[in-house]
This record gives sequence, C-alpha cells and structure tokens, in this order.
Amino acid sequence: MSEASSTAINADPTVICRVRESFARQSFMATLGARLTRVEAGIVEIELPFRSDLTQQHGFFHAGSTASIADTAGGYAAYSVFPADSTVLTVEFKINLLAPAQGDKLIAIGSVIKSGRTLTITDVKVFSETRGQRTLCAVVQQTLICLIGKADKR
Amino acid sequence: MSEASSTAINADPTVICRVRESFARQSFMATLGARLTRVEAGIVEIELPFRSDLTQQHGFFHAGSTASIADTAGGYAAYSVFPADSTVLTVEFKINLLAPAQGDKLIAIGSVIKSGRTLTITDVKVFSETRGQRTLCAVVQQTLICLIGKADKR
Amino acid sequence: MSEASSTAINADPTVICRVRESFARQSFMATLGARLTRVEAGIVEIELPFRSDLTQQHGFFHAGSTASIADTAGGYAAYSVFPADSTVLTVEFKINLLAPAQGDKLIAIGSVIKSGRTLTITDVKVFSETRGQRTLCAVVQQTLICLIGKADKR
Amino acid sequence: MSEASSTAINADPTVICRVRESFARQSFMATLGARLTRVEAGIVEIELPFRSDLTQQHGFFHAGSTASIADTAGGYAAYSVFPADSTVLTVEFKINLLAPAQGDKLIAIGSVIKSGRTLTITDVKVFSETRGQRTLCAVVQQTLICLIGKADKR
Repeated sequence: MSEASSTAINADPTVICRVRESFARQSFMATLGARLTRVEAGIVEIELPFRSDLTQQHGFFHAGSTASIADTAGGYAAYSVFPADSTVLTVEFKINLLAPAQGDKLIAIGSVIKSGRTLTITDVKVFSETRGQRTLCAVVQQTLICLIGKADKR
Repeated sequence: MSEASSTAINADPTVICRVRESFARQSFMATLGARLTRVEAGIVEIELPFRSDLTQQHGFFHAGSTASIADTAGGYAAYSVFPADSTVLTVEFKINLLAPAQGDKLIAIGSVIKSGRTLTITDVKVFSETRGQRTLCAVVQQTLICLIGKADKR
Repeated sequence: MSEASSTAINADPTVICRVRESFARQSFMATLGARLTRVEAGIVEIELPFRSDLTQQHGFFHAGSTASIADTAGGYAAYSVFPADSTVLTVEFKINLLAPAQGDKLIAIGSVIKSGRTLTITDVKVFSETRGQRTLCAVVQQTLICLIGKADKR
Repeated sequence: MSEASSTAINADPTVICRVRESFARQSFMATLGARLTRVEAGIVEIELPFRSDLTQQHGFFHAGSTASIADTAGGYAAYSVFPADSTVLTVEFKINLLAPAQGDKLIAIGSVIKSGRTLTITDVKVFSETRGQRTLCAVVQQTLICLIGKADKR
C-alpha cells in the first residue's frame, strides 16, 4: 500500500499486518478513498482526502463519510488490542459534529479508552485539514465487541 | 427520479420538492447509490441497494454506509418540517447496530420525535431486506439544528 | 410494596418477582422515591413523583433524576428477558431531553428492542404527567450486558 | 460552602460565583451529597462521596448517580463560558460505563470541547477513587444549549 511509508511502526508487526489486511477487506474504505495512515497498539488513524462525491448539500464532507472513517478508526484501534483469533464488530457509536467538515482531507484518530474481555470502548477525534492546519470537526464515543474464534472475513 | 413512483405523496408538494432537491445535492448519496423512496411531513425513507463496494470485512454493509443513510433519513425528516428559508445540519447522532446489515437492500426510516424552533430530535430505524423479509438492523437517535436564513446549498 | 396493585401481571410471575426484588435492592431508587409500576416480559415502567429535592436550578426534575429512572426502566426491561442465573449491567445509554421535565411525576417506560445472548438494546421513553396529561420529555437508547452466573446482589 | 477551600481559583471570580450560585440552586445535588470542587473557565469538577443510599443492586454507585454528577459537571463547564445573561440546559448526553463505580467517592471532570453561540459540546470523565487511587469509570459526551436572556433560576 502506498501509505505504508507514513505508518508509525510502534506496534507488534503482526498487529499492524492484521489491521492492514482487515482494512483492505473493507471495500467501502476503497470506495471512499480512505487510507490507513497509522497503526499502533490501541491507536489507528485514517485519512479521507476531499472528493466532491463525498459531500452533502453545502459541499462539506457528508456526516456519513465523516462517521464512516471515524467508525473504522475506532474499530481498528480496538481490533489492534484484540487476541489473534478474533474479529471486531461495532456495537454502537455516538458522533458530535462540531464544525463543517471541509478542507483538503479529514483525519480520524481512534484510541482505545478501555478494553475488556468482551467490550472495548474507544474515543475518536476527526480533524479537517486545510493547508496543514487542523480543526477538530467531530468527536465520537464508540463500543466494540470482540468475537473470539470468529474469522475476520466473509 | 426513477423512485418517484414509489413515493407517498402525503406531504405538501413544496416540502416534497424541497427535500428531493436537497437530497439530489448530496452527491454522497449518489456515490452510495441511495434512493429517496418516501417523503412525508416528518417522515423520510431512504433505500440503499446492496453493492459489494459498500461492505466491511465480513461482506456486510459497512456501519458507515448504514449510518450514512440513517443520518440522511433523519436529517430530511427534520428538514421536512422546517420553515422554507432554512437549512439543516446534524448536531449529533447515536447508532446501535443490532444485527448484521446484509441482504438485498437497507431501508432507513427517519421520523421526527420533537421539533423545536432551533433543535429537532429524530428517531431512525434501519431495516435490512432479503427477498421482501425485513429485519431491524440499526436504531438511531439524532439531533438536528435548523438554520434560518441560510441557504440549503453551497 | 404498595404499588403492587397497579402492576400489570402479564409476565411470568417468577420474572416479575425477580425484577421486583432487584429493584428493591437498588437503594438509590428508594432515595429518589421511584416506584416500579409495571413489569412485563421486555417492558418495565417506573414512576418518579415530583419532589423539590430532585430538581435543577429552574425547578424542573434534574436531568440526572430523569436519566436515573430511565436507566433503571431500560435495565429491568432487559433483565426481565434474561435467564434466571444472571445479572444485568448498563454498558451505555444516550438520553435526549425534549422538554422541561416538570409536573406531578415522571413515568419512564423501558422496552427491549433486541435481546442477544450477551447484549440487549432497549428504548426508553420518559413522560412528565400533570393532572393526568402526559408529555414526552426524554428518549433514551441503551445497551445492557447480561452476566451469566453472576449474582444480582452484592 | 465547606468545599470552597479546595476550589482552584483560576477563572474570573464572577464566573466562579455564577457557577457556584447555580449549583447551589440544584437541590438534587444536595440530595446526592455532591460537592462542587473546582471551577475554571471551561472546566468543572464535582465530587460525590460514597453513600449506600446511592447504589444499585450490587452495591456500586447507581449509573443514575454517576450520570447525575457527570451531567452537572459538563453542564457547568459549558455554563462557565456562557455570557452573563444566560442559562444552560442539557440537550442530550451519552455515557459509557467502563468499570464498577465503587470506592470512597466519584469525581466527575467536565471540559468544554467546543463552544458555539447556541450549542456547546463537552466531554466528561468520571473517576472512582479508593484510598487516593483513581480509576476511570465512565466517559460522557454531552450537548448543551445556551439560552440568552433567560434567568438561571425558577
């Protein structure tokens, strides 16, 4: 993947690999043009470059496109701390949209707040970036479930 | 629009027209292949036919694609009861994913619970449909803001 | 309990009993003066008569008192469909406050939307009642976890 | 107030005073035994000493008592940055309960994430403390509305 060079290599290589492979199986991320730009144990970052076909009626990123990368960033932050023979599903999330999501790209940074045997809670911050300047545009609180023994693919 | 024939014509024609025009300006809805299938005062329905490029790693609709049509259905349910010279923005929403979102299509039905001068609260139910059989797969609680005097376009 | 007479006896008597006993162990409910007024399989209703010591700065029921009975109504709606040797914990909830919570009493009605092996999702509506007239004043979406083999007491 | 001595005096004294007076009008806080322990511009802290009459069936703080101080901490963090002739109401909040709320006391720390003319978004963290040791037990994301020209009392 072209973004590999920008990935922080702080986590177990196996974990990075597992998250990257799962991300690659999410065809919706490719449809959006989203890129996985950072994978660490408990932290995952996803970028979404602006495209006019991702927008709502005012020309901003649609709340759905913002929510999509936020859900994925939080989900993989959780998955990065799960055991090897497991998969992840989103139980629920709540997103507050703080400012118009506009600019060159969005950056969603998902972090694990608390990881339990069954449930993991994450916090995701989404920034919009215009010429290198970041503005916090959404915050998310999310609950994920760890399914042991279930494959992370169809 | 091809789905016009299936639209319930229960609301003021001006309202239906206003919602349809705004929906058509949301280029993200076209990217997803989402269709506006019902507009009434306080109720809006959106369908999303299955496409493999909308999925997550298990081949189900990605939570982001589910959330995208849910946000739009709730947002337009709110907008359908707003005054003429206004626009709508999502303040926040919370989504619970109840069952794998799989099948021929998703149907998001947004309904206004309470509409105030500034804020409107909606409830959205998302069903997955397989050969005509519907399963509730997500529920959403959403807060929208009415911006008076602001155009509903860029 | 004095409210027993107003309880709908539609559920398995064992379930009603189990919910009543657990409610009686929640000393916070007694502190608030909350009463369990209905227990059915998947539906639980709690009433909170007005007391000036439950209020916020405008003299309305504090959002915390509203949330407290909503959380309990949803939690016991879930518990009412759980197996016998289990207990219930709230994973998370989201509450929208729609109108000032004022009047003679609040009534929280919790209903199970989806019950799984591990997680159960409920919907709670809270009404304020003034001279028999009800107004919807809050809506809640809640996630509960079923803990098998763990006692429902200290 | 007896807790005055432990309050950080970092904010405009008028703001501190305004928040303290409003808190004192919330009779529900006195009912719970909650204390306002810190007021700064955009940050408010509330403590809730353990009392067995604030508990649920396992003897932990009831989620409603946790939510009550979290809602108040976030609400006053917002109110601390509002203009003088205004009041605050909670629009909605979402709480994730991360760990059993037990110990000597709970401490809720509310912080403003984004403050707009009409809506303010806060983040609240609730810690349980046992013999000086703090554990994060709940996280909240909350939306407040600023009502200009409306008195902050009945």
